[in-house]
Amino acid sequence: MPAPIVVASNRGPIAFARGAGGGITAKRGAGGLVTALSGALAASGGLWIASAMTEADREVAARGRVGAEGADASAYELRYLGFEPESFDRYYNGWTNRVLWFLHHYLWNLPQTPVFDAETGEAWDAFVAVNRTFAEAMAEEGDRLGPGVAFLIQDYHLSLAPAMLKELRPGARIAHFSHIPFAGPSYMRILPERFRTALLDGLLGADVVGFHAPEWADRFLLSCRLLPGARVDLRRRIVRWRGREVRVRVNPMGLDVEALREEASRPDVVRATDELREWKGDTTLLLRVDRAELSKNVLRGFLAFDRFLEARADWRGRVRFLALLNPSREDIPEYAAYVGECIRTAELVNERWGTDSWQPVDARVRDEYAQTLAAYGLYDALVVNPTLDGMNLVAKEGPMLNTRDGPLILSETAGAFQELQRWALAVNPFDVDQTASAIASALDMPADERAARRRGLRAAVRRNPPSRWLDSQLSDLGLAGRHTPAG
Amino acid sequence: MPAPIVVASNRGPIAFARGAGGGITAKRGAGGLVTALSGALAASGGLWIASAMTEADREVAARGRVGAEGADASAYELRYLGFEPESFDRYYNGWTNRVLWFLHHYLWNLPQTPVFDAETGEAWDAFVAVNRTFAEAMAEEGDRLGPGVAFLIQDYHLSLAPAMLKELRPGARIAHFSHIPFAGPSYMRILPERFRTALLDGLLGADVVGFHAPEWADRFLLSCRLLPGARVDLRRRIVRWRGREVRVRVNPMGLDVEALREEASRPDVVRATDELREWKGDTTLLLRVDRAELSKNVLRGFLAFDRFLEARADWRGRVRFLALLNPSREDIPEYAAYVGECIRTAELVNERWGTDSWQPVDARVRDEYAQTLAAYGLYDALVVNPTLDGMNLVAKEGPMLNTRDGPLILSETAGAFQELQRWALAVNPFDVDQTASAIASALDMPADERAARRRGLRAAVRRNPPSRWLDSQLSDLGLAGRHTPAG
Repeated sequence: MPAPIVVASNRGPIAFARGAGGGITAKRGAGGLVTALSGALAASGGLWIASAMTEADREVAARGRVGAEGADASAYELRYLGFEPESFDRYYNGWTNRVLWFLHHYLWNLPQTPVFDAETGEAWDAFVAVNRTFAEAMAEEGDRLGPGVAFLIQDYHLSLAPAMLKELRPGARIAHFSHIPFAGPSYMRILPERFRTALLDGLLGADVVGFHAPEWADRFLLSCRLLPGARVDLRRRIVRWRGREVRVRVNPMGLDVEALREEASRPDVVRATDELREWKGDTTLLLRVDRAELSKNVLRGFLAFDRFLEARADWRGRVRFLALLNPSREDIPEYAAYVGECIRTAELVNERWGTDSWQPVDARVRDEYAQTLAAYGLYDALVVNPTLDGMNLVAKEGPMLNTRDGPLILSETAGAFQELQRWALAVNPFDVDQTASAIASALDMPADERAARRRGLRAAVRRNPPSRWLDSQLSDLGLAGRHTPAG
Repeated sequence: MPAPIVVASNRGPIAFARGAGGGITAKRGAGGLVTALSGALAASGGLWIASAMTEADREVAARGRVGAEGADASAYELRYLGFEPESFDRYYNGWTNRVLWFLHHYLWNLPQTPVFDAETGEAWDAFVAVNRTFAEAMAEEGDRLGPGVAFLIQDYHLSLAPAMLKELRPGARIAHFSHIPFAGPSYMRILPERFRTALLDGLLGADVVGFHAPEWADRFLLSCRLLPGARVDLRRRIVRWRGREVRVRVNPMGLDVEALREEASRPDVVRATDELREWKGDTTLLLRVDRAELSKNVLRGFLAFDRFLEARADWRGRVRFLALLNPSREDIPEYAAYVGECIRTAELVNERWGTDSWQPVDARVRDEYAQTLAAYGLYDALVVNPTLDGMNLVAKEGPMLNTRDGPLILSETAGAFQELQRWALAVNPFDVDQTASAIASALDMPADERAARRRGLRAAVRRNPPSRWLDSQLSDLGLAGRHTPAG
């Protein structure tokens, strides 16, 4: 029997909701993380600890541990932690979304933002309290499960929990994994010193600190040099801190290809495919799929398309750029302003180049997953040009479902770049002329090269199943990576 | 006879202008750089090469080398390089002000700026051409002056000239000095790779690369790790590149105290002092003096003052915040927008707290040096809170002229922080509550502590005369630092 696992993440694998009949329904989340971890939990025992995010979650939270059987083929336990809504909002929106997300994605406009004040301090205090609750719950569940438990703590929301757990249980084996980028030392110095030190110290409570891409690991290591007394070995990726040796590892998350394929075969996706095929007619389809998010670089994508149409009269009337933007954090003013500007820019491109029978850009801000999967199947080229992105799964999902050998235009600052660069068209996300040229190269590309790149992209994605991500973490903790039966 | 010196900088030590009578008049620039270098040039021979910035400069440029005697007590030669105005504008505004200044001060709002395109490419080409003209002029003048010449290349405008000169004259002894901060590797990666590599390679053409503060030197060293094949020794501050060893040195520029004192004794300063004394009446004076510049953090200074007045009813009606903002780069849209927002914020503070007889903030956007020197004499506390600043001479000038033992509130991210931190009130420039507290501490401070801090600040400034900056550079080049007769 392998050692049990305790997973901790802000959002749990199953979202509960109040159904029409008054009962509580459960829905399993998608993605490689849930696949990898729920498989492992079912095989080895253990549980998943998460924040209660909804009213129904909070009801479930009140019951203590519950089984995941109802919502998941795998059998494992869940424990949802209930927080007082106001302090949860401070932790989640005030600190993790407004401060940490902006910090690690370099999103501040420094002449004006951030402004740190007493409100920031309150958000921080809530962040500390939530992390402490997680650490205490992990310690408690670890004691119950017995010795040899592996603690797998997920993402920036829980940056402090590793050190808190290590303090409660010095012998605990702890891995932390960041699913977003990490700020380098110059940008980290924007944070007041007490926050910066606590964040780095918090992560260094883990035995292994993991990132999707080498660049993020290196930025973390360089930031650790800000800690007085820390000894950082950049080459071997080791930090000596408080008498311990912390290993920093690069471990890109894989895609759950089978689950994606299954989703894509649902009837609503088939319907959406028919609609989209009708909509596009015989035009060539350029696609982007993103959360409507400041780091996704939607704006420069439209500017690049504008330059492409300017340079290439032969493509006018023959290509459409479909932008599927999933609404995100609409209550943060920067997000609302940004989406507004993206839409206005799309309209300008349409005014400049459009005709009665042809509108070059269609930007849709709504949450329709079936439409996204349908669009993956039909694109002739896919634009993934974030200014900074921890991984970016679109760059992996698109090529797995696409049926037209559509080339991938990929930002060199996306985490996925490391795995896919050989088969993608690389762009500096700030260079709109280079991006325009990449659009031209993608649309002009001969069929044999398109096919070769598609094969390369798919092989690269297949080489890295989600199970590998988990196994590497367990083996870095000194545990056999035998938890997952299959990729 | 010490070895001769060739100085190169974008702006020369003497500005020429067409006088009322039609003749050309010459005016010597102020500041430690001109003092240190012109003293050395007079003692050792050599010349100063600079860009012609005005029409009169260009007329002087056409004459070839000219003497500086007319405008300067020191006797040395000048050579002004004339450029075609359109390409000079691309180099100066298009590249150095719009790209390099924003890059090294972290001023971009990444969801929207920068946008690199063909225009950036043209600005870059002009930047390359200007740097090449400088390198060729330096090579030529070096040959004329004979062996053992020290080339002292100033600032980011001439980032490429060191490597160009080294290629033309492999034996040349070259020091480059940056008077602004330097971007770390994460921010440097925003630049397209060809620009980034050329900039780093350009600087590494020097034998010694100098910065005002350890933080800027470290950021440069970390950025050099982006160069494939460069070997960077962070501890010893050495970069091995193209078979050479380049030393990186920290060498903060000193203040020319005597020249400043002389300026401050001019009749127009005495007049301005009377006016300002009348204006302030018996209120306490909080002062800031800055170029109206995105990195100076004027906005958060006003926000902090607002919080201070909110927390401290006892100071309402008794303190005035005078902000002297020297107009800067008014043709760059970001600057105009920023100054507008600073003024609006000042007005909001006045609306919120002001009375018929008392307006808390007075923000003056104009260029009046006499008024600045007068204000230095009279302040009760000085706010210097830039988000990032290569050195910041205001933090040194103010304490040398102040007559009221006014404390210095100083951003921990100003280059001057290293030298002055022990005697200043340190602030994180993004933390407005901490800045508000520092204002309170400064205004509440007992007389003996104020006096002790004033003594400490003055001693720190006096410890580092401009001659030391020059001597260190020459000695780093293997030349005796005997060029300047006095500090």
